[in-house]
Amino acid sequence: MTVSWLALPVDSPFGVHNLPYGVFTAPDAPDRRRIAVAVGDHILDAAAAARATGLDAALAELLDAPVLNPLLAAGRTAWTQVRAALTDWLTDPAHRAAVEPCLLPRAEVALHLPFEVGDYVDFYASEHHATNLGTLFRPGTPPLTPNWKHLPIGYHGRSGTVVVSGTPIVRPHGQRKAPADAAPGFGPSGRLDIEAEVGFVVGAPSPLGTPVPLDGFADHVFGVLLVNDWSARDIQAWEYVPLGPFLGKSFATSLSPWVVPLDALAAARVAPPARDVDLLPYLDDRDGRDPWGLDLTLEVRLNGEVVSRPPFAAMYWTAAQQLAHMTVNGASLRAGDLFASGTVSGPDRGTEGAFIELTWNGERPVKLADGSTRTFLEDGDEVVITATAPGPDGTRIGFGEVTGRIVPSSGKD
Amino acid sequence: MTVSWLALPVDSPFGVHNLPYGVFTAPDAPDRRRIAVAVGDHILDAAAAARATGLDAALAELLDAPVLNPLLAAGRTAWTQVRAALTDWLTDPAHRAAVEPCLLPRAEVALHLPFEVGDYVDFYASEHHATNLGTLFRPGTPPLTPNWKHLPIGYHGRSGTVVVSGTPIVRPHGQRKAPADAAPGFGPSGRLDIEAEVGFVVGAPSPLGTPVPLDGFADHVFGVLLVNDWSARDIQAWEYVPLGPFLGKSFATSLSPWVVPLDALAAARVAPPARDVDLLPYLDDRDGRDPWGLDLTLEVRLNGEVVSRPPFAAMYWTAAQQLAHMTVNGASLRAGDLFASGTVSGPDRGTEGAFIELTWNGERPVKLADGSTRTFLEDGDEVVITATAPGPDGTRIGFGEVTGRIVPSSGKD
Repeated sequence: MTVSWLALPVDSPFGVHNLPYGVFTAPDAPDRRRIAVAVGDHILDAAAAARATGLDAALAELLDAPVLNPLLAAGRTAWTQVRAALTDWLTDPAHRAAVEPCLLPRAEVALHLPFEVGDYVDFYASEHHATNLGTLFRPGTPPLTPNWKHLPIGYHGRSGTVVVSGTPIVRPHGQRKAPADAAPGFGPSGRLDIEAEVGFVVGAPSPLGTPVPLDGFADHVFGVLLVNDWSARDIQAWEYVPLGPFLGKSFATSLSPWVVPLDALAAARVAPPARDVDLLPYLDDRDGRDPWGLDLTLEVRLNGEVVSRPPFAAMYWTAAQQLAHMTVNGASLRAGDLFASGTVSGPDRGTEGAFIELTWNGERPVKLADGSTRTFLEDGDEVVITATAPGPDGTRIGFGEVTGRIVPSSGKD
Repeated sequence: MTVSWLALPVDSPFGVHNLPYGVFTAPDAPDRRRIAVAVGDHILDAAAAARATGLDAALAELLDAPVLNPLLAAGRTAWTQVRAALTDWLTDPAHRAAVEPCLLPRAEVALHLPFEVGDYVDFYASEHHATNLGTLFRPGTPPLTPNWKHLPIGYHGRSGTVVVSGTPIVRPHGQRKAPADAAPGFGPSGRLDIEAEVGFVVGAPSPLGTPVPLDGFADHVFGVLLVNDWSARDIQAWEYVPLGPFLGKSFATSLSPWVVPLDALAAARVAPPARDVDLLPYLDDRDGRDPWGLDLTLEVRLNGEVVSRPPFAAMYWTAAQQLAHMTVNGASLRAGDLFASGTVSGPDRGTEGAFIELTWNGERPVKLADGSTRTFLEDGDEVVITATAPGPDGTRIGFGEVTGRIVPSSGKD
């Protein structure tokens, strides 16, 4: 087991087996964004450490950037080399004198969006979530559409409104129409919701016309983070037929600031649920074809109270299948593309990743300790999503958190 | 009427009233992308002309870039100043000695994607197209969904696969399932189609949380180009419920290389069709509220033969309404965001902007002069979309063309 000269507690979510990447600014240079690596309660100024340790220039250059994109684009060999260097710096006492001055208390730095987002694709990979939403949005028809078990359904979201954890979420205005209304009305969303998701950050690009097979997943995907895909259910319900969600989602999508490298998740890999139908070869992950189920346990807190613990291991479609599907038509990948799992909802009460499911469309409000109840989010509410996964040797891999507080809409009705 | 020392014919699509922007490379420097302005059969090396004429340094810097994005971001005042300078250079004989050496024959340069695309949104703004597609995709239900006349339906497309005119289009593979099939099959699309559209290029950004009203259109939109939103109808039909088109569209979207400035289209503005329902205030463009209908006539050629002439003036929703809708939930804009009209289809036979409509789902094939027929596109087929609009004083504004040839898929079935 790797032990750090930092003397981290064994249950640290940011131990030396994790080493997630982010982008920070220090208080004395609020405009100078730099790459950070989280370790314990500190962050490592990665470029400064590369200089102090005399890291190979080509690798050091990848760390000396205001965003992760150059490192993402560099590909798996470079990712492995950089991770090996980071591990060496933080575990070998011989590096302590050079590296320790490059550590800053995490509480003292500001964290930013860690990469420039190329395309953002959102999937719909939880059978429980899709069944719940289908039941609520399309009563009287089978909740899962006929295609659902044959392909991972996804759609493109708005990459320009992806924001970092902590960014205030302005309640969106929009059109909404209840079935009984004669005409649509307009105003602030009355059914503002979360979607607790897991996101995958594409590193190595792929050229137009060249699909990425299932076993190319680890060559192209750099890491994992948490996503809150805020959703205005009233706007979404009125707009989404026939071309899918648009304004009900595009006002904001929040990301956790730390990208956990795929290499940190070896101990978290699990087989996905058994498949009910035969899959076409490009999606078939049985028989040792590199399944990429991941045993993350998410936790959703509303104003400090845990309201749900969604299990990512229950997701029907894996991220490797999503990537294979997304590119099977020849669509290219760019460094910084982001794809998210869709809402993580488990089979049981208390494991749903959205309030529309938790409260069954508002019919069974969540009760909070202060005596209040919630169906959807109220102004001032703060949602925090966290997650952990098994690490090597009984350690835990933390994902940090993605938070957002709802602020009132400033628009006119 | 402005006359150029270039002695252009009065019917030139690229006269001095047009002056569209693009990005070119010359044969002697194939890696050095520079901003071009089309004029007659030539292109002007805009940065070279700025240097030769001593243009104000701040404006010259906007032209000295490998993409249009800095110019796009600079906003309307800068756009007006740059356009005035270009017009001056090309019409005042006093500039001829300085500017003429900056002209290159258009046939000798290579044209590239003119800007880095931020988010790409595709609308669905032709009532005729939406009615046709609704009839074909959802038989037995009303072709227009209940929301269609209340809001401009749109969705996000894949910006990473937006390519410049001339890029070969690889026939995509994917899942498809006819209603009578027991399970989906996989292979090259058998129903590869075009969508002839008009695209709008966002210039000045807008901050998160701040809608752009109808009358903000000209402050934020820089210009107009042609779009071919290639579509695999068999893949699309199987995947698109409930979250909208994904792989049926994301393999490629082609753009014409020239961005026609909004300022060149003053004479093309027309009122949109009469609205059948009352619109909410943020979309209501009656009573002089700046309607942005545009009288472009598109032409679609297949292997050199005209198969359709879609009229853009027949579009139900204007680009100003689309922009107002896209941002009404607070979504921000970035310089380089692209939004397209959706397929331009008119009410009459021979004005449809897609083969699925032209051939009525393949039931009435298009007959070509060589005796062959087409339902959807075959390997080797080339599609060219062009357009013109009225310019000032009886001139015409040309849009150039967006072309693409279908090449066989190299993937395995």
